[in-house]
Amino acid sequence: MKGLMQDYPLLIHTILDHAARNFGDREIVTRSVEGGIRRSNYAELHSRARKVAKALEKEGIQVGERVATMAWNTDRHLETWYGIMGMGAVCHTINPRLFPEQVVYIANHAQDRLLFVDTTFLPLIEKVGDQLPSLEKVIVLTDADNLPQSTLPNVVAYEEWLQSVDDNYRWRKMDENSAAAMCYTSGTTGDPKGVVYSHRSNVLHALMVNQADGLCLRSTDTLMPVVPMFHANAWALAFAGPAVGAKLVMPGAMMDGESIYQLLDEEQVSVTAAVPTIWSMLLQNLESNGYELPALDRVLIGGSACPPSMMDTFEDKYDVRVIHAWGMTEMSPLGTMCTPTYATTRLTKDQQRAINRKQGRTPYLVEMKIVDDDNNELPWDGQTFGRLLVKGPCVSDSYFKLDKQILDDDGWFDTGDVATIDEFGFMQITDRAKDVIKSGGEWISSIDIENVAVAHPRVAEAAVIGLPHPKWEERPLLIIVASEEVSKSAILEHLQGKIAKWWMPDDVVFVDEIPHTATGKISKKSLRDQFADYRFPS
Amino acid sequence: MKGLMQDYPLLIHTILDHAARNFGDREIVTRSVEGGIRRSNYAELHSRARKVAKALEKEGIQVGERVATMAWNTDRHLETWYGIMGMGAVCHTINPRLFPEQVVYIANHAQDRLLFVDTTFLPLIEKVGDQLPSLEKVIVLTDADNLPQSTLPNVVAYEEWLQSVDDNYRWRKMDENSAAAMCYTSGTTGDPKGVVYSHRSNVLHALMVNQADGLCLRSTDTLMPVVPMFHANAWALAFAGPAVGAKLVMPGAMMDGESIYQLLDEEQVSVTAAVPTIWSMLLQNLESNGYELPALDRVLIGGSACPPSMMDTFEDKYDVRVIHAWGMTEMSPLGTMCTPTYATTRLTKDQQRAINRKQGRTPYLVEMKIVDDDNNELPWDGQTFGRLLVKGPCVSDSYFKLDKQILDDDGWFDTGDVATIDEFGFMQITDRAKDVIKSGGEWISSIDIENVAVAHPRVAEAAVIGLPHPKWEERPLLIIVASEEVSKSAILEHLQGKIAKWWMPDDVVFVDEIPHTATGKISKKSLRDQFADYRFPS
Repeated sequence: MKGLMQDYPLLIHTILDHAARNFGDREIVTRSVEGGIRRSNYAELHSRARKVAKALEKEGIQVGERVATMAWNTDRHLETWYGIMGMGAVCHTINPRLFPEQVVYIANHAQDRLLFVDTTFLPLIEKVGDQLPSLEKVIVLTDADNLPQSTLPNVVAYEEWLQSVDDNYRWRKMDENSAAAMCYTSGTTGDPKGVVYSHRSNVLHALMVNQADGLCLRSTDTLMPVVPMFHANAWALAFAGPAVGAKLVMPGAMMDGESIYQLLDEEQVSVTAAVPTIWSMLLQNLESNGYELPALDRVLIGGSACPPSMMDTFEDKYDVRVIHAWGMTEMSPLGTMCTPTYATTRLTKDQQRAINRKQGRTPYLVEMKIVDDDNNELPWDGQTFGRLLVKGPCVSDSYFKLDKQILDDDGWFDTGDVATIDEFGFMQITDRAKDVIKSGGEWISSIDIENVAVAHPRVAEAAVIGLPHPKWEERPLLIIVASEEVSKSAILEHLQGKIAKWWMPDDVVFVDEIPHTATGKISKKSLRDQFADYRFPS
Repeated sequence: MKGLMQDYPLLIHTILDHAARNFGDREIVTRSVEGGIRRSNYAELHSRARKVAKALEKEGIQVGERVATMAWNTDRHLETWYGIMGMGAVCHTINPRLFPEQVVYIANHAQDRLLFVDTTFLPLIEKVGDQLPSLEKVIVLTDADNLPQSTLPNVVAYEEWLQSVDDNYRWRKMDENSAAAMCYTSGTTGDPKGVVYSHRSNVLHALMVNQADGLCLRSTDTLMPVVPMFHANAWALAFAGPAVGAKLVMPGAMMDGESIYQLLDEEQVSVTAAVPTIWSMLLQNLESNGYELPALDRVLIGGSACPPSMMDTFEDKYDVRVIHAWGMTEMSPLGTMCTPTYATTRLTKDQQRAINRKQGRTPYLVEMKIVDDDNNELPWDGQTFGRLLVKGPCVSDSYFKLDKQILDDDGWFDTGDVATIDEFGFMQITDRAKDVIKSGGEWISSIDIENVAVAHPRVAEAAVIGLPHPKWEERPLLIIVASEEVSKSAILEHLQGKIAKWWMPDDVVFVDEIPHTATGKISKKSLRDQFADYRFPS
């Protein structure tokens, strides 16, 4: 027996329709790439996105074909997202920070037919343009006056391109499981893999994010997504904001502390979101200028773990609530957010602060568990750690054109992370699975040891890797870049009592430099190669 | 091209799984029908609901078959909901306030095989039991000690019935569009019509309600659903509360002001919901006892329009925020909620108060519009009124076993209400469509005139109906029950300037009593019959 409710597919255009209908004059403020502030609103976004859709149909783009963007967070970039998805094409966001050969790989793999690009990134495309056979046209997100000379054959200014059509357009009717967007993940090894979001997953994800115990977005909020739209679905904010009619502030190309501060201050931003690096720059800027941010209420921090000192500064000095979060491209990307539950509000202030440093708890529609190597579920005790598996309607079930099973038989996706989960349901990442150290059948967290080590005043950077050990299978080696001279024994003494006894590194070595990946993370793989011939002192 | 996200159907059991997993020890407090307070939690609800599911399978209940409940808001009633829906049967909530012949009609129409019933309503079932051929067993929601003697052949105590199974049960895998629950609407004319909710519609509806700009439910909230679970899907609260891990307070059979106050006070309820009648009783009780309710934060009021004076009392005297809402059984039932937008927060306090009296705005995933008799869309100006049409994934597309098209060609459902929508998107009901008065091609709101009339100190009750008029098609007749003697001219003078000139009733008549429907609303149909031979003075 079927329910007798309307067949109303969850399509992304319904979000923008709702925003335009109910919040038509709510502002969208952009720091334009050309310079200066541009003001728009949801009614205009709605009109211009329909123009984009109509112009794409005029270009002969078919339902399901890929149209790429490589752009900053601006009103125009938003228009292309809603326009591409609303006409049934797939919006492929390309990260301009990838190596050029990766850009070539993914644009060809996705078979992108058109590309919307900011002037900033045009040189990158010019460099590899002749290696992109499927790319028919490059639409530069500016007007004719600001269009740079280009060596590419088929380049047009966005504003000119848009003028060729009106906004008399009806969104395409589609199945909600149709592809809406795609985003490649770039691992440290192997080719990038294409994650494909559906209309349904993006709509459900926006509803999840906007729950009161999530980001709690309201119409009265002013939201500045600093996390780039070319990164992990922009953390859903390009959908969550319009769904509630929040004012949007789009920071464009300027990511420095002063530029970010100016927008936060002048536009009275109440909610913002980015990786820790951005907030380091902002906090330094606030500090050195004696600025304050009274309108700012909460900051969503993810991408990598937020340093406790950064949380403390935000909360104690600027009265801004930090919402620590964790996710991954394959999760749309939200996995957990660290917002209090009734149970955690009963704890002492110190206990609450400790919990706030964890990556947080799952919203309804994300399931998680930790398992051991034999896939046995492990307890939620805040101590035991295991591989973190997830499940939900906004989690990948496969990669684009990759014939490989990525879920287990019960539908769980392995995040590649190792974590603990406490009795309150709060998860904390302890390691990447490939970096965890297996010693005598138990696991040691390399991240935990590194965190303690870098707290030593003479340690600039620290990395821990597991190396083969005849008796224990693996044992930890602590690798240190010292800022001032410091002895091995001083380091070991510093660790004493702060980590489990059997976690104590078997050796400490000093190096001039620790290798990093393209995205700035410590490259444990390079370290393991570098120390392949190392033997622990016996 | 399809998105590559997990096929994870939106099934109701996932809500309870999430609650038990993350908030297992969060309390569910029930005023038991037997007397006294009973304390349970989500872990227990999860266990007992699985027992219900297993026991239903043991009874031979098949997927899609109907199992009825006729019960107060209690932990046990919640268990039956999740158990019935979780094993794939359809939970048919029967309203005990219906006339016995209506109960017989709907139980037979739905072909209910089993019935869970509170002792309170057992006599009602005994009276009509021999007219319910499909009903195989009656399970009384109590234990063996409290099971009354019954004239029915197959009666068993719930606790005894439940003891026959353990909770080792895996929820049924189903399509999310499967029927989960049904609820009959009883119009003033014709047979009741069966609305059938799907798992998908109930899950999406819970997500809608829990948005920050909706009811904004959090894990830290204590929620008391006073609105009965046998009425309009309990306003989604039986799903919305568990989805966030809110503490639940279930008021059982006692609806009087003192009983409601006790629970609000002792259990520190922060959010509650019911029709205005309940809050009249509560406010009288608070008043006469000098009680206060410092923990209470917000009250959801719907079902019928909330009198402005009630809103003022809640807000000014008790510092409780009233969230005015509107919906209907066919909408799961949420249509609009009156929460501020950025635009309305910019208005003066008086303007905001006026807006709060409206029924409110649609959340994302409800669409509405007003149209004239020719189906032309009307402007959102707060003045023009027209038939209110709605659309969305939680809106009916047909009734159970009724072969009748109820949506127009574009998928809109006619609510049967007449309303205005203002520039901020806030809707106000002006009439039932069948009660609106058509005068000279324009519409007159009977409700608006009634509201002004009852504000006269000597008017106890007022009703306005349209009667045929040779020149204007229809004209309003104002019918009054006076509390003290008052003249026709005094009434008309009172209306002067408070309603449009051409809305002025052509006559005022005094009666001893105004007829009401079974649910306590003014029966305009009876009044029209009663005044069928009336002629306006010429």
